[in-house]
Amino acid sequence: MHAFRSHTCADLNKSNVGETVRLSGWVHRIRDHGGILFVDLRDHYGITQVLCDPDSPVFSEMEKVRSEWCIRIDGNVKARDEDLVNDKIPTGEIEVFVRDLEVLGDADELPLMVFGDQEYPEETRLKYRFLDLRREQMQQNMTLRSDVVASMRKRMWDKNFREYQTPIITASSPEGARDFLVPSRLHPGKFYALPQAPQQFKQLMMVAGFDKYFQIAPCFRDEDPRADRSPTDFYQLDMEMSFVEQQDVFDTIAPVLAGVFEEFGGDRKVDAPQDWPQIPYAEAALKYGSDKPDLRNPIEMQVVSEHFAGSGFAIFAKLLEQEGTEVRAIPAPTGGSRKFCDRMNKFAQQEGLPGMGYIFWRKQSADTIAQEQGISVKEVNAKIKAGEIVLGEEAAGPLAKNIGPERTEAIRQQLGLGVGDAAFFLGGKPKAFEPVAGRARNVIGEELGLTDKNRFAFAWIVDFPIYEADEETGKIDFEHNPFSMPQGGLDALNGDPLAVKGYQYDLACNGYELVSGAIRNHKPEIMLKAFELAGYDENEVKSRFGALYKAFQYGAPPHGGCAAGVDRIVMLLADQQNIREVMLFPMNQRAEDLMMNAPSEPAAEQLMELNLRVIPQE
Amino acid sequence: MHAFRSHTCADLNKSNVGETVRLSGWVHRIRDHGGILFVDLRDHYGITQVLCDPDSPVFSEMEKVRSEWCIRIDGNVKARDEDLVNDKIPTGEIEVFVRDLEVLGDADELPLMVFGDQEYPEETRLKYRFLDLRREQMQQNMTLRSDVVASMRKRMWDKNFREYQTPIITASSPEGARDFLVPSRLHPGKFYALPQAPQQFKQLMMVAGFDKYFQIAPCFRDEDPRADRSPTDFYQLDMEMSFVEQQDVFDTIAPVLAGVFEEFGGDRKVDAPQDWPQIPYAEAALKYGSDKPDLRNPIEMQVVSEHFAGSGFAIFAKLLEQEGTEVRAIPAPTGGSRKFCDRMNKFAQQEGLPGMGYIFWRKQSADTIAQEQGISVKEVNAKIKAGEIVLGEEAAGPLAKNIGPERTEAIRQQLGLGVGDAAFFLGGKPKAFEPVAGRARNVIGEELGLTDKNRFAFAWIVDFPIYEADEETGKIDFEHNPFSMPQGGLDALNGDPLAVKGYQYDLACNGYELVSGAIRNHKPEIMLKAFELAGYDENEVKSRFGALYKAFQYGAPPHGGCAAGVDRIVMLLADQQNIREVMLFPMNQRAEDLMMNAPSEPAAEQLMELNLRVIPQE
Repeated sequence: MHAFRSHTCADLNKSNVGETVRLSGWVHRIRDHGGILFVDLRDHYGITQVLCDPDSPVFSEMEKVRSEWCIRIDGNVKARDEDLVNDKIPTGEIEVFVRDLEVLGDADELPLMVFGDQEYPEETRLKYRFLDLRREQMQQNMTLRSDVVASMRKRMWDKNFREYQTPIITASSPEGARDFLVPSRLHPGKFYALPQAPQQFKQLMMVAGFDKYFQIAPCFRDEDPRADRSPTDFYQLDMEMSFVEQQDVFDTIAPVLAGVFEEFGGDRKVDAPQDWPQIPYAEAALKYGSDKPDLRNPIEMQVVSEHFAGSGFAIFAKLLEQEGTEVRAIPAPTGGSRKFCDRMNKFAQQEGLPGMGYIFWRKQSADTIAQEQGISVKEVNAKIKAGEIVLGEEAAGPLAKNIGPERTEAIRQQLGLGVGDAAFFLGGKPKAFEPVAGRARNVIGEELGLTDKNRFAFAWIVDFPIYEADEETGKIDFEHNPFSMPQGGLDALNGDPLAVKGYQYDLACNGYELVSGAIRNHKPEIMLKAFELAGYDENEVKSRFGALYKAFQYGAPPHGGCAAGVDRIVMLLADQQNIREVMLFPMNQRAEDLMMNAPSEPAAEQLMELNLRVIPQE
Repeated sequence: MHAFRSHTCADLNKSNVGETVRLSGWVHRIRDHGGILFVDLRDHYGITQVLCDPDSPVFSEMEKVRSEWCIRIDGNVKARDEDLVNDKIPTGEIEVFVRDLEVLGDADELPLMVFGDQEYPEETRLKYRFLDLRREQMQQNMTLRSDVVASMRKRMWDKNFREYQTPIITASSPEGARDFLVPSRLHPGKFYALPQAPQQFKQLMMVAGFDKYFQIAPCFRDEDPRADRSPTDFYQLDMEMSFVEQQDVFDTIAPVLAGVFEEFGGDRKVDAPQDWPQIPYAEAALKYGSDKPDLRNPIEMQVVSEHFAGSGFAIFAKLLEQEGTEVRAIPAPTGGSRKFCDRMNKFAQQEGLPGMGYIFWRKQSADTIAQEQGISVKEVNAKIKAGEIVLGEEAAGPLAKNIGPERTEAIRQQLGLGVGDAAFFLGGKPKAFEPVAGRARNVIGEELGLTDKNRFAFAWIVDFPIYEADEETGKIDFEHNPFSMPQGGLDALNGDPLAVKGYQYDLACNGYELVSGAIRNHKPEIMLKAFELAGYDENEVKSRFGALYKAFQYGAPPHGGCAAGVDRIVMLLADQQNIREVMLFPMNQRAEDLMMNAPSEPAAEQLMELNLRVIPQE
C-alpha cells in the first residue's frame, strides 16, 4: 500500500465497503459522541468521516489529536446506516473505522479556525495565510482562479495564438504609472524597472512578425494603496495581433471572454458576444455617466436642457445661460415616491452636491382636482364614482411646481415615464457632474431592483478621444496611452486635436472595465505628429519609446490588441469585492507581506554591492 | 474583403487558382527577371511568390519596394508551370499576379538581413532584435519554446495539477544565490526581493492543503555573467505535491518530460522513463566524474588503485600512500593509438594537470616478440606464417612500462579492453580530480564517436549528501539547499553529518542537469536539528525561513517536488548552445538590454521617492 494514501478524502463510496483503506489529511473536526471519536478528515478534494471506538488499537492516540493536525489513518470502510447517509458530500454513504494512526504533522494552538465561518481580521488572515487558505471559500477561490487562467490559455490556443514570455527585468515603461525600480549591481547607479505592462514588447513582437501573441502577464505598478487593487502587481490576459482592424480584435477576444464567463459563471446569464453593443465614449458618458457602464441597469440618462432653459427653476435656468452647460435627467422607473426621492437627494448631498432635483409622478388625487375645479373633495369623489372624472397622473416635487405643468409633462413624455415613476436632474458642465450622475444611476438601479444581479452584461466602449485638455492650463495631453492610431490618420491630427478619436476601446462588464485595447499607431510620421501635439519632440519620443520608434522604421505591420484584467474577472466570477480574496499571497494595503516579512531591511553588504545608500529619515 | 488579407502567405495552393486574393507580409526577397518583378512575400506562416509585370497597374510602385518592407497586395492566383513547381513550400504550386499594392510600413536601410544565413555580431542582433527575430531560425526557436511550455502545461493538467502564480515581488529567498532587490517607496530604507525560486511559496501551498501545484515560474538571480545562462532570470517548470515519497515524484514528472522530448525531439531517440536509471550520487561521481552524467556516452570509470599501489609508477604509488587518495581509469574503447592518447594528454594539460597517464593496447609486433625470445624479426615473421606464433595484444605507453606486464594485464582485464583500446588514469583525492575526469570522459566519448548524438539519455541522480565540509575550515554546511528531508530522519542527524544522505535528487540528460528536487523536511524538530548541524540556531532559522518554520507548526503534510529548467530543455530540443537563442529579448552578457536600453539612470525624483542615494564611484 502507498505510504500515505490509497484514496483521497473524496473517493470512497458504497462500492468500497469492506475494503481496508489508507487516508491522509487534516482533522477538520473531532467530536466525542458517547465515547466514540468522530473525525472529519479533510484533504484538498473532500471530507471523509472517520470513526475511532475504544476497541481500536489507536484509540488513546486518537484522543490526543486536535483540529488541523495532519494525520494518516488506516481503516475499514463501512456503510452508514440509511438514516445517517449524508447526501451533500460524495463520501456520505460510508464511514471509516480506524485501525492505525500516524501523526504526520501536529499543530500548535490555532490563530484562526479552518472549520466554520468565523471572520478574522485581515492582519491575522494574511500573517497565517497558510491556514487561511485551507478554508473552503479560499480553496474554491484559488482553484477557480487557476481554472479561469487555464481556460483562457486553452481558448487562446484554440484561436491559434501562442503564448510568449516577455522580460520582467527590463527598462522603465511609459504606461503613466510609477515603476518599480531594480538597482543594477554590475552597472552602479543604473536601474532596471519591472514592466507596467508588456505593451512595448508585444508591439515589438508584431514588428518581428509573430502575428499572434498572448500572455498571462504579470504587470507591476508602484501604486498608492487602494482597497480594490494590489499595491504591487496584477495579471492581464494580454494579446496582440497583426494585420487587423478594431472589429477583428473584438471578434477574437469576445468569444474567449464570453466562454470563460459561461464556463465559470454558474447560473448567471452571459450576454452573447454578438449582442455586446458598441457604444461611443461620448454616448456612454451621456447615457450612463461612465465609460464602464453597468448595462444590467436599464436606466439611460437623457439631455433635458430645453425644458429648463428660461424656466421658473432659476438655478437651472441661470446655469444654462453659461456656455457648455447641460441639464440631464436620470429616469427612475418605479421610483415615484417622496420617500425614495428624498433618499436619493440625500445620496447626492453625501456626494458633495447641494442636492438633486427630482419630479415624481403619482395618481392624481381628489384634492388636486377639487382645488383645480373649485369644488369640494366630496363632490369630486362622487364624480369619480359616476365616471365623470378619470384620475390621470400628477407630477409632484418642488421642481415640478417651479417649471409648471407643461414643461413637466414634456419631460415626462420625453423620458417615457408614468404614474409611480420618478426622474432626477443634474446640471452643469457634463465633465463635472457626469461621475456623480453615473453613481446616482447605479444606486437608483440597485435600490429599485432594476439591476439584474443574475447577469453578466458586456459593452464595447469605442471612439475614445486621443487627447484631453488640462482643465486649468488648457495644455493638451494624451487622454489614455500614446500608442493608439488616431481615426483619420495624419489628416485628423492636422485639425482640432480634441476632436480626434482613436481606434481605442474598452470592454465594460457590470460596471467594471474588463479590457482595454487599441489599434496601434505603427507609422513613425503619425507617431511623431501625435506626440508633437502633446508637447513631446522627436528626442523625447526617442528617449521614452526608443525601441518602438526605431522598430517602426523597419517595416512595421498594422497591429492591435488588448489586455483583460485577470484578477477582476476572477473577482466577478467569485462574486468577491476584495482583490485579496482571489490572490494566493497578497500584500496588505500598506504593501507589506506579513507572512514573508517583506519589505525588510537589506544587509549592509547588499547595499554596498548595489552602490546605494539609504537617506536617513528625519 | 478583409482590409489586410484573405489568406496567409502559407495558405494558397492549386485549389485557389483563378481566385482574387489579398495578402499581407514582408518582402523577403525581390528580384527583377527580364522586366518582371518576383517578390517572395513572407509572413509568420510561410512564403508566397508574387509577380508583378509591366502590365500591372502598380508596377512602378512595386519597383520602389525593398527588402523587409511590409506590404499588402491584391492579385490573381495562377498555377505555376509544371517545371517551376516548388515542392519545398506549401504554396509552391502557385504564384500571385499583383493588381494592387499598399505599402503598410517601409523600411530604412537594414542593419541585418532577414533573408539568408549571414552571421552578425551579437550586439547588432540584440540591438535590432525585432529584425533578428524575423529570421527563420529564430521564428522556429521561439515557436518551439512556446509550444514546449504549452505542452508542459497540458501534461501537468492531465496529471491533475493546477497552476498557481506565486508572488514576484516578495521577500529575500534563501536559495544561496544573490537576490535582485526592489526598493520600497512606502517603507523607506526597506526592500523587496525578486524570488530566486518559488520554493517557500510552493511549500506553503502544500501546508495550505493544495495537494498538487505547478507553475511555469520566472526565477531571478543576480548572477555574474556566464555564457550559458541569463544574467537575470530563467524559467522553471516548478511542481510540488503532498503525501508523496521520492518515487511518486519521479513517476509524476518523468512521463511529462519524456512526453515533451518525444513530441519535439524530432527523430532523436528518447529513453523511456522506466529505463531511466537511479544512480546514487557517489556512484555517479565515481563512474562519470559528474552528478549530471551524459549517459549517451557508454564509458564508465573504475577504481584501479590496487594495480598502482606499490607499483613502479612512482607518482601514483606515492600518491596512494596518502589517505583518501585513489587512482581511477577512464576506459577508452577504440582509442588505442599513440596519436589519440597524446591528444588526450594535451587536453589534460590544458585543464591544468601535469598530464594524464595512459596505456593503450595494440596487436603485438614481431619486434616485441623478437626481443622477448631473443631471435630475429625475420625468424618471428616466419614463425607467424607457419602458425607457430600467434600475435596477442601488447600494452604500450610509458605507464605500462613502469608498472610491468602483470599489473597492466590486470588493468586490461578489469576494464574489459582489448586491442585497439586505451585507458587513461587520474589519481589523487577524488573531489579534486573528478571534475577533470568527467570532462575527459566527455571528450573521449565525443572524439571516439562513442557518444550517440541522436538520443536523449536520462538518469536520476539520488542520495545526495545533505552536508559537505569546507575543504579548509572543515566547517559543515548544506551541500545543496536546506529544505530536504534527511534519510533516516532525526536519528541520522545524531550520527556523522557527512554520512547523512537526503531525499534529494536531480535528473540528468545528455550531461545537463534538467531537474532538481527533494522530499522536503516538514518536521520542525528535524529542521531545527538540521540547521543546528550547519551552525544556524533557532533565531537564524526563524529570521531566514520564518514563514516556513512557522507553517510547519500547524499541521504540515509530508511533501516533495522538483523544478525543471525550461530554457535548458528548449536549448536541448532546439540543439542550441547559447541560451540567448531560445529567449525572445535576452540581456547580453553584461546584463544589458541593448534594445530597450536597460539598465539606465533613474530620474532624480525617482531616487528621492525611494529615499536612496547612489554612492559616487571613484
